[in-house]
Amino acid sequence: MYTTLQQYSANARIFLILFTKVIVLHNDILIINCTVLPLSDDMPELIQHGYVAISDGKIAALGSMADLPEKYEADTLIDGSGLIAMPGLVNTHTHAPMTLFRGMADDLNLMTWLNDHIFPAEAKSVNPDMVYWCAKLAAAEMILSGTTTVADGYFLEDRVAEAFVEAGIRSVVAQGVIDFPAPGVPAPGKNVSVAQEFIERWQDKNSLLLPAVFCHSPYTCSSDTLQNAKEMARQKHARLFVHLSETQFEVDQIQQQQGTNPVRYLEKLGLLDNDTVCVHCVWLEDEEIEILARTGAQVSTCPQSNMKLGSGIAPLKKMLDAGITVGLGTDGCASNNRLDMFFEMDLCAKLHKVRDLEPTALPAEVVLGMATLSGARVLGLEKDIGSLEPGKKADIVLLDVKQPHLQPFYHPDLLVYSASGGDVATVIIDGKVVMQDRNILTFDVGQTMRKVRKLAESL
Amino acid sequence: MYTTLQQYSANARIFLILFTKVIVLHNDILIINCTVLPLSDDMPELIQHGYVAISDGKIAALGSMADLPEKYEADTLIDGSGLIAMPGLVNTHTHAPMTLFRGMADDLNLMTWLNDHIFPAEAKSVNPDMVYWCAKLAAAEMILSGTTTVADGYFLEDRVAEAFVEAGIRSVVAQGVIDFPAPGVPAPGKNVSVAQEFIERWQDKNSLLLPAVFCHSPYTCSSDTLQNAKEMARQKHARLFVHLSETQFEVDQIQQQQGTNPVRYLEKLGLLDNDTVCVHCVWLEDEEIEILARTGAQVSTCPQSNMKLGSGIAPLKKMLDAGITVGLGTDGCASNNRLDMFFEMDLCAKLHKVRDLEPTALPAEVVLGMATLSGARVLGLEKDIGSLEPGKKADIVLLDVKQPHLQPFYHPDLLVYSASGGDVATVIIDGKVVMQDRNILTFDVGQTMRKVRKLAESL
Repeated sequence: MYTTLQQYSANARIFLILFTKVIVLHNDILIINCTVLPLSDDMPELIQHGYVAISDGKIAALGSMADLPEKYEADTLIDGSGLIAMPGLVNTHTHAPMTLFRGMADDLNLMTWLNDHIFPAEAKSVNPDMVYWCAKLAAAEMILSGTTTVADGYFLEDRVAEAFVEAGIRSVVAQGVIDFPAPGVPAPGKNVSVAQEFIERWQDKNSLLLPAVFCHSPYTCSSDTLQNAKEMARQKHARLFVHLSETQFEVDQIQQQQGTNPVRYLEKLGLLDNDTVCVHCVWLEDEEIEILARTGAQVSTCPQSNMKLGSGIAPLKKMLDAGITVGLGTDGCASNNRLDMFFEMDLCAKLHKVRDLEPTALPAEVVLGMATLSGARVLGLEKDIGSLEPGKKADIVLLDVKQPHLQPFYHPDLLVYSASGGDVATVIIDGKVVMQDRNILTFDVGQTMRKVRKLAESL
Repeated sequence: MYTTLQQYSANARIFLILFTKVIVLHNDILIINCTVLPLSDDMPELIQHGYVAISDGKIAALGSMADLPEKYEADTLIDGSGLIAMPGLVNTHTHAPMTLFRGMADDLNLMTWLNDHIFPAEAKSVNPDMVYWCAKLAAAEMILSGTTTVADGYFLEDRVAEAFVEAGIRSVVAQGVIDFPAPGVPAPGKNVSVAQEFIERWQDKNSLLLPAVFCHSPYTCSSDTLQNAKEMARQKHARLFVHLSETQFEVDQIQQQQGTNPVRYLEKLGLLDNDTVCVHCVWLEDEEIEILARTGAQVSTCPQSNMKLGSGIAPLKKMLDAGITVGLGTDGCASNNRLDMFFEMDLCAKLHKVRDLEPTALPAEVVLGMATLSGARVLGLEKDIGSLEPGKKADIVLLDVKQPHLQPFYHPDLLVYSASGGDVATVIIDGKVVMQDRNILTFDVGQTMRKVRKLAESL
C-alpha cells in the first residue's frame, strides 16, 4: 500500500533540487528532526527523523533527515524533535457560531432541547456580531486542536467567512437554506437567492475559502427549495450540504410525506452526486447505502453528536464497504460539545467496535484517513490537502509526543487512541504558522473569549 | 439536593474560625479567586469567586471570597483566577504497568490480541524493573490528567506501590491472584499467601496507600482460590477486586462449568459484600443486578476498554437504578489506550445515551459523581476523599477554563462534555502540590519516559 522509504527517497531528492532552486524567492519553512506521518498512499507510512520543507504555501519536499542537503537554509526553521508532523485534520461538518450554546442545555429530550432551549436562544442571540465572534472562538478551538480545514453551515455566513479568513483556517463555508424565516433571511422565499449571492460574493475571493450552500434537511426544505438550491450550486460549481436521516423520527416523517425513504427521495429530486455532502446518515436501509454509493454522494458522519443526542449509530462499516467516501465531523457545539477531531476519531473507532462486538471493526488507520484524506475528498479538496505530499498545500499539524500519555510510540494508532487536541503544539495552514506553542498567532483569542462570554451573559 | 450558598456560608465561617486558629502550626495552602465545584450533597453546587483553604493535608475550609477573613495568610498562595477547583478524580480500575503495551497491538480479535501479543509481551517483559517504571509512567499520566486516587491490579505490586508512593498519588494497590504461574508467583498454589504477605507489608505503612487483593476472574481462579483470597482479605480488612462478566464468552464458560451465572456463582462462594469490587459487569442478567445490589458489592465500569475490545455495553442505568454504587475506571493501557478520566466520563455519558437512544440517559452530573464520590465509595474511601468538604483530605484538581474549548461556562456539565486531562493545571494530593503548571513536582518524568522507551525498544 505504501511505497518503501528507499523508493520514496529517490523522488524526494528530486523535489529537493527543485526546491533549493526556488527557495531564495519565497517564504519558506523547514521542519527538521520530526517524525513524519504523510497519511498518503504514495508515501512511506512513517518517516522517523525526517523533515518537511515548505515553500510558497506548499509542501516542497519531505523525507529523511539523511537526505536533506547540508547547505539548506530556511526563513523559518522549526525543530521538530519529539514532534510528529501530520496532515491537518479536516472537520467535514460543524455549525461554528453555535459555540455560544456549548453546554447551555445538556442531557435533554431532543424536542425539549430544540424547542425550549436552542431555538429560543438562537432567536434571541443570532445576529451578525454573534456569528462573527462565536465563529472566531470556534476557529481558535479548531486550530488549537489540529483542525486546518472545516466545513461550516449556518446563517449569516458572511460573518463566518470573515472570521475564518482572519483566523487563517481553510474552510468550506455554506450559507443555510431553510423554509422558515431565518437570521439574515426573513423571507424564506429568498433563501436560495441569498445563498447564491453569498456564493457569488465569496467565490475566488480568498484562496483559503470555498463558498457553498447548506440545505438544512429534507424535512425543513420543500422539494422545490432542495431542487432550486442544487441547481444553483451546480451552476456555481459549489458544494451542497444537507442533514440526512439523523433520527428515526425524521425518517418516518419523510416516509409518510413522500412515500419513500429519504435517500431515494433526494435521488429522485436530483440532489445526489459527487458534489453533495449528506451529513449524519444514521438511519439508512441497505438500499439507501447502495444509492449513495452509486450516485457518488459524499457522507459526513458525526458520531459524538449522534451519541449525545441519542440519535443512533450510523452504519459506517456498510457505507465504507459499499465504497462511499465518509469524512468525520464534530457537528456544532450545542450537541457535542467540542470541536476536537482527536476526540471524534477516538470515539468513532471505539463506537463501531462495540456496535458490532468486534474489536477489528473500523481500525485506527481507517479513522485517521476519514479525518484527513477522506475528509478532503468529501469537500472536493483532495488534490490540495488531506495528506503530506510534495505539491500539496502546506496544512500541517505538529503533535507533541514527549508526554507521558503518548509514550511509548509503536504505531500511528497512538494518535487515534491516546492523543487529544491539547497535544497539538504547532499548526501550519497554507504554509503559514497560525499557532505556535499553543498560541494563536493570527488574532487575539483573549478578546474573542471576552466577546463570547459577554454574549453568553445576555442569554 | 444541594444546600444553598447562603446556608452554607454560615457553616463556612465557623470552619474558618477553626482554621485560623491552627494555621500557624501547619503547612497550609490557600487557593483564592477560583470557581469551586465541591461535588458534595452537603455543599452548594458551585461557588463562583471562591477559595479553598488547606491545612495539614486536609481541606480546612472553602467558600466565597467574600467570607475569607482579610487577615488570612498562607505558606502557599495559589491564584485560582480562571481555574475550577474540583475534587481529584478516582480511577477505580487499571493495570498501571501495562503502559508499556499502549498501542502495541490495536484493532485485533480478542484471542489474537491476548495470545499473540499481550501474553507473549508480558512473558518477555514483566519484571520488577518494568513494573516500577511503567507504573511510574502511569502515575505521571494520571496526575497530569487529574486523577488523584487510583485502584491498581497487577503482579509484583510492591513495585507499583513504591512507584505510586514516590509519585505522591493516592492508591489502592491490589496484588494479583491467578491459578497460573505469574510474574513473582511462579507457584500458583502460593498466590493467595503471596498476596497476604503483600498486604501485611503495606498495611499502615503509608497514609497514601491501601493494599488489597485482585483475583483475576472466576474463569482463571478456582473456587478454592476465590474463597481463600476473600477469607484472607476479610481477615486483613482489605478490598478484593475481581474481573466479572466482561465478555459473553466468559459468561457462557462459567455457566457451563458452574451451572449458574457468574454473579450467583460468586455469591454462593461468599465473595460478594461491601468490600468486593466487581470490575466490568458488562453481561449481567436482571437477577445478577439484584444480587449485586442486595449484597452491596461495588462495581467498576470501564466503558472505553469494553468498547475498544468489542466486549459490550454494561447495563449501567439498570445498575444505578438498583442502587448499586458504580465507579468509573480506565482499565489498563493495552485496551483503552489512555488513563484520562475526562475522556472516560465523556464517553461513558454519551455511550449510554446512544445505547438507549435517549439523550436524558446518564446525565453529566451522574457521571461526574461516578468519577469522584461514587468512585471513592467503591474503594471504601468516601469519608476521606471524593468531594471538597472541610475535614476531607485535600485531593484537589485545578482545571484551566481560560481556553477556547471551555468557553462559555454555563454549567459544570462542561467538565464532562468539553474538558480533557490536558486542561488540568495543578494537582494537589493529601495537601501537597504534586503537579503545577503541567509539571510533575514529585519525580523526574523525563527519566521515567526514557526508561519506558528503552523497555519498549526491547519488545
